[in-house]
Amino acid sequence: MLTSEVKAKLMDVVGVDNVEDDQASLLAYSYDSTPGFQAMPNAVVSPRDKYEVAAIVNICNEYQIPIVPRGSGTNLCGGTTPLEGGIVLIFKHMNQVLELDEENLTITVQPGVYTKTILDAALEVGLFYPPDPGSMHISQIGGNISENSGGLRGLKYGVTRDYVLGLEIVLPNGEIIRTGGKLAKDVAGYDLTRLYVGAEGTLGVITEATLKLIPKPETKKTMLALYHDLEAAATTVSAIIANQIIPATLEFLDQPTVRVVEDFAKIGLPTEAAAVLLIEQDGPQEVVARDIQRITQLCRENGAFELSVAKSDKEAEQLTEARRSALSALSRLMPTTILEDATVPRSEIANMVNAITEIAHKYNVNICTFGHAGDGNLHPTCLTDARNTEEMERVEQAFEEIFARAVELGGTITGEHGVGVMKLPYLHMKVGEAGIEAMRSIKKALDPHYIMNPGKMFTKSSRERVVIHK
Amino acid sequence: MLTSEVKAKLMDVVGVDNVEDDQASLLAYSYDSTPGFQAMPNAVVSPRDKYEVAAIVNICNEYQIPIVPRGSGTNLCGGTTPLEGGIVLIFKHMNQVLELDEENLTITVQPGVYTKTILDAALEVGLFYPPDPGSMHISQIGGNISENSGGLRGLKYGVTRDYVLGLEIVLPNGEIIRTGGKLAKDVAGYDLTRLYVGAEGTLGVITEATLKLIPKPETKKTMLALYHDLEAAATTVSAIIANQIIPATLEFLDQPTVRVVEDFAKIGLPTEAAAVLLIEQDGPQEVVARDIQRITQLCRENGAFELSVAKSDKEAEQLTEARRSALSALSRLMPTTILEDATVPRSEIANMVNAITEIAHKYNVNICTFGHAGDGNLHPTCLTDARNTEEMERVEQAFEEIFARAVELGGTITGEHGVGVMKLPYLHMKVGEAGIEAMRSIKKALDPHYIMNPGKMFTKSSRERVVIHK
Repeated sequence: MLTSEVKAKLMDVVGVDNVEDDQASLLAYSYDSTPGFQAMPNAVVSPRDKYEVAAIVNICNEYQIPIVPRGSGTNLCGGTTPLEGGIVLIFKHMNQVLELDEENLTITVQPGVYTKTILDAALEVGLFYPPDPGSMHISQIGGNISENSGGLRGLKYGVTRDYVLGLEIVLPNGEIIRTGGKLAKDVAGYDLTRLYVGAEGTLGVITEATLKLIPKPETKKTMLALYHDLEAAATTVSAIIANQIIPATLEFLDQPTVRVVEDFAKIGLPTEAAAVLLIEQDGPQEVVARDIQRITQLCRENGAFELSVAKSDKEAEQLTEARRSALSALSRLMPTTILEDATVPRSEIANMVNAITEIAHKYNVNICTFGHAGDGNLHPTCLTDARNTEEMERVEQAFEEIFARAVELGGTITGEHGVGVMKLPYLHMKVGEAGIEAMRSIKKALDPHYIMNPGKMFTKSSRERVVIHK
Repeated sequence: MLTSEVKAKLMDVVGVDNVEDDQASLLAYSYDSTPGFQAMPNAVVSPRDKYEVAAIVNICNEYQIPIVPRGSGTNLCGGTTPLEGGIVLIFKHMNQVLELDEENLTITVQPGVYTKTILDAALEVGLFYPPDPGSMHISQIGGNISENSGGLRGLKYGVTRDYVLGLEIVLPNGEIIRTGGKLAKDVAGYDLTRLYVGAEGTLGVITEATLKLIPKPETKKTMLALYHDLEAAATTVSAIIANQIIPATLEFLDQPTVRVVEDFAKIGLPTEAAAVLLIEQDGPQEVVARDIQRITQLCRENGAFELSVAKSDKEAEQLTEARRSALSALSRLMPTTILEDATVPRSEIANMVNAITEIAHKYNVNICTFGHAGDGNLHPTCLTDARNTEEMERVEQAFEEIFARAVELGGTITGEHGVGVMKLPYLHMKVGEAGIEAMRSIKKALDPHYIMNPGKMFTKSSRERVVIHK
């Protein structure tokens, strides 16, 4: 609980209405989209501008109170769970698009703006904001930046990081800095912009962002390729890239996922296929036509038994939306859905998919796999029940083995979901103890009182034991 | 001078032949391509692998000896001048392309590989490495990464940072870490990869890099547009981008630069024009044709009095090479050439070019301007004589005003050259004292003994006086 002294100070800053500590509010912000993690904050605070954010940070520094900045809480790594209590910072008052600059192809936004709003604003003037995390309809850009969110278009267009040109940040010491700008090139000092992208709110609070937009692709085409086995689909992915075609989207769904999605979306998806590739190319008309033709050929050569190109925008939209619904669809089946994102070099997709199947079998757990095959970013998804502790232990073991295998194949423990608290026990697999120690020293340098989203990414001290969540 | 004890220890690590401390060697590494900065190192050391680098770092930590990692020394910010003596680390033994992976579109290299070698290796298999700093024929990739080098293709393809997927780094504490990988997506912890890109060798030694390659553009076209005044050329640049065309290259040269380049290259450049745009588009045949047509129209609408498209690859190559020769050509005119890189949002190009002209006039100094207009990255270049101290003072004042103006216009003090020692006095203009303090705390956290390229980017302590170089 906050002392009445602290509460009064916070209310002085943001106004009485913007400090909530009733049970219902605290409960609402005690968890995010990650199953299995919950902790109560002491208050939910809604600042109205950067100065208020700075004032809150100063109070929290003085009283050593944790601050957890949070968007819509759509993350899947427990990144915004207030593990050590303290204040959850929300941005309902800082949700404006500040400027759309058509001359410099940039958009400047506050952290509480929905990702979809940014895309829509861009599309309205013929521009495009490519990053499209699965939750983009409700996710906020502040969260996207803090998690360096990916999405379906990552292969061709990159991730959130590639579109952040400048940030306004309230540092853990209460100072306000601006990094970057409407600049294609800027090498004035360390790249703080990219350090803060993906820092998961552990290094400060982002209060404004200038994002890069690109011209809207002229046209796009969407197609499905069906396979009798996983390996042929995976091989096709490698073949497309090796033939130097970079599709806008190159998604993989295994049979269990396709069945569940079809049951949910009812758009006539081919439930008889062992694996499906959903492929989209965008760009100039001629190029799209040529690429789709070459992709069709490569799919055939690599064993697709059926190919279909969407005949209308509506049909294409249905396919993409069906893919986007995969998590929701899978979530209906069992009480607990654990969506992971082990990621490997593209050439290892087939090996990784096989490894996941084997590991699921070994531990007798139910894992469906889908994901962004084109960039090696797979989402093995476990359907389970958190109340079944015996099964959950097997699930943990299976995932640990999946992460280890991904790293062995030159991959990583998380491609786009972040470390948060969920992957914390596994970070050393990817970056090593020396890598964690380097990160820890940066954290300590910028946030000596450890107030910013504590308990995330790595433990405070190297002496702390890493306990795997059970 | 190194003590005989330290020298013996270094020789133990790298062998007798790889520690040089004769006067000729020390002199050769006492300066880089930046006029006005020189300082003698105590030794030049050539490690043969990462373990030797780590051993050297450990020795230097023990004896508090500065280490300056250096490629070909083509930087223009005094970034590799051994200001505080110590060891210059060169990579003549670590100059191999380790792997070209056509399936994952990556190339893995040691730091001593020439940039041009990487491009050539990629082209040979139909792939492309876009970053093309002016010095790419002789610059080394380790230096490019440490400076986050830009180039002529930055507008469309980005800079070195956008192509670094993974690094092997010897940290200042002697630990060896690996970051990233052959991965389009990786959010396992802080983005150390991008923190080290552009860190100017102040945070450790890069011993290996995995770079992203892209499919080679199918074709390209090169054209010139001539203008009677600077402003019309600058307005054209804005118009092209605002019309959502992103050319591969969009270079600006003012009349003095064109005259000098023509005198140097003798290819029939139009010396009667007040300003010239050199424009290149690449990509699929149909797209390039269409874009060049639209660009031609936009140039005309914005006041170009003559337009010409290169008729052959050879002619196109000549034009690009002529532009690349600008610095060499200008350097012949006066004893000292100071090439700067104030950078602004694209929409401010015209304002910035006008400001440079005014400021040059005000301080009565000779400044030619050329540069990467498409990304707002201008190179105001002063032809002067370092021995004329009175003039040099005016030059300093003029550049300080140019930097201030660039920042006022939403720009930065350096777009692609880096801070090094040359821009150190100006860094606060862009990032503020709080920004410098944040960077300083990161430096201190990772390099507590301050051995890595000391005296660069910012002063060691905030209490140190910043002295402007005279």
